[in-house]
Amino acid sequence: MNAETPAPTTGPGTRERIVRATSRLLQRQGFEGTGIKQISREAQATLGSVYHFFPGGKQELAAEAIRHGDQEFADLLREGLGSTDDPALAITACTRLLGEALRESDWQDGCPITTTALETVGRAPVIEQAVAEAFAHWRAVVEEKLHGAGLPLADARDLAATVINTLEGAELAAQIARSEEPLHVAGRHLARLVDTYRPGR
Amino acid sequence: MNAETPAPTTGPGTRERIVRATSRLLQRQGFEGTGIKQISREAQATLGSVYHFFPGGKQELAAEAIRHGDQEFADLLREGLGSTDDPALAITACTRLLGEALRESDWQDGCPITTTALETVGRAPVIEQAVAEAFAHWRAVVEEKLHGAGLPLADARDLAATVINTLEGAELAAQIARSEEPLHVAGRHLARLVDTYRPGR
Repeated sequence: MNAETPAPTTGPGTRERIVRATSRLLQRQGFEGTGIKQISREAQATLGSVYHFFPGGKQELAAEAIRHGDQEFADLLREGLGSTDDPALAITACTRLLGEALRESDWQDGCPITTTALETVGRAPVIEQAVAEAFAHWRAVVEEKLHGAGLPLADARDLAATVINTLEGAELAAQIARSEEPLHVAGRHLARLVDTYRPGR
Repeated sequence: MNAETPAPTTGPGTRERIVRATSRLLQRQGFEGTGIKQISREAQATLGSVYHFFPGGKQELAAEAIRHGDQEFADLLREGLGSTDDPALAITACTRLLGEALRESDWQDGCPITTTALETVGRAPVIEQAVAEAFAHWRAVVEEKLHGAGLPLADARDLAATVINTLEGAELAAQIARSEEPLHVAGRHLARLVDTYRPGR
């Protein structure tokens, strides 16, 4: 966004700007460290318009931002998984895309929802539900690819869970190390694991 | 701690109580959501004694709490890994112990350092260094077990990274699902992966 041509503080794009700004702030600093005022500033929206669109305040806003992050990460997964028919190579394509996106953000933009999820375990049902739905969605995207590639459904389902969980952990490790290496290693291992489940191998 | 016999607010145990209280609070609510006053209350220590032991304030305290969490998780890993000679079964023993500990804490006490790590990426060098050292320590514990069980050093090193990263992700998933299942699935998959690297298999 160009500082010389500020976006209008009302109008059809405002709600989306608020959600995007919240998503980015939650990703970088978490739920506790993010205030409504900062969201309003970053989104170039008035405090009044933030409360107009999200009368439930920060929890409602965070849940919506998590749904936004859910779609963003699902898009990345679909791009990686769709790049090849081979299910094992498709997983490594996801780890490559994730590593590139992390590097481009100078290791700041990790999983858009993990920090908020961890900060609110057992304390914010609206947020917890959005988090659970996001993880279920991502697992479903991977499961569909693996099952579509011929893996039995039960194996595809279990593997999809471990693929998502390993990507989460490796993404954090990559941020800490400021290096794509943990994601590349995870990609190799997940591909190897998936191969052990493929018929005829 | 018994409310009828409050602990002294000074003396040899005070520093340790402050570190333990900080560790638990960071684990449950993260760095941003935890204040020095709450730490002092939970530790039954005066604010003055908190600053006496940690003149660097919350960042210094968080770094020390992370080193405490580092040891706690390393102890759990050693207990699991030491329970059997078989390196694959040793990994599943770790996932079982983790699941039990999570369930006992009503899914609250996940990784003692992940939330703080995510909240402070690129913004708190003292904390980031403690986080990096903790992850390196945990990987070294797993690497030692795998290499000691006959896996080539390079394989043991890479696998140790993925084991820790997958445990991290599966632990988060278990907290979200309020179920040990993601950890059990991770344990089966990691054991299967480790087995593919064992000589003669």
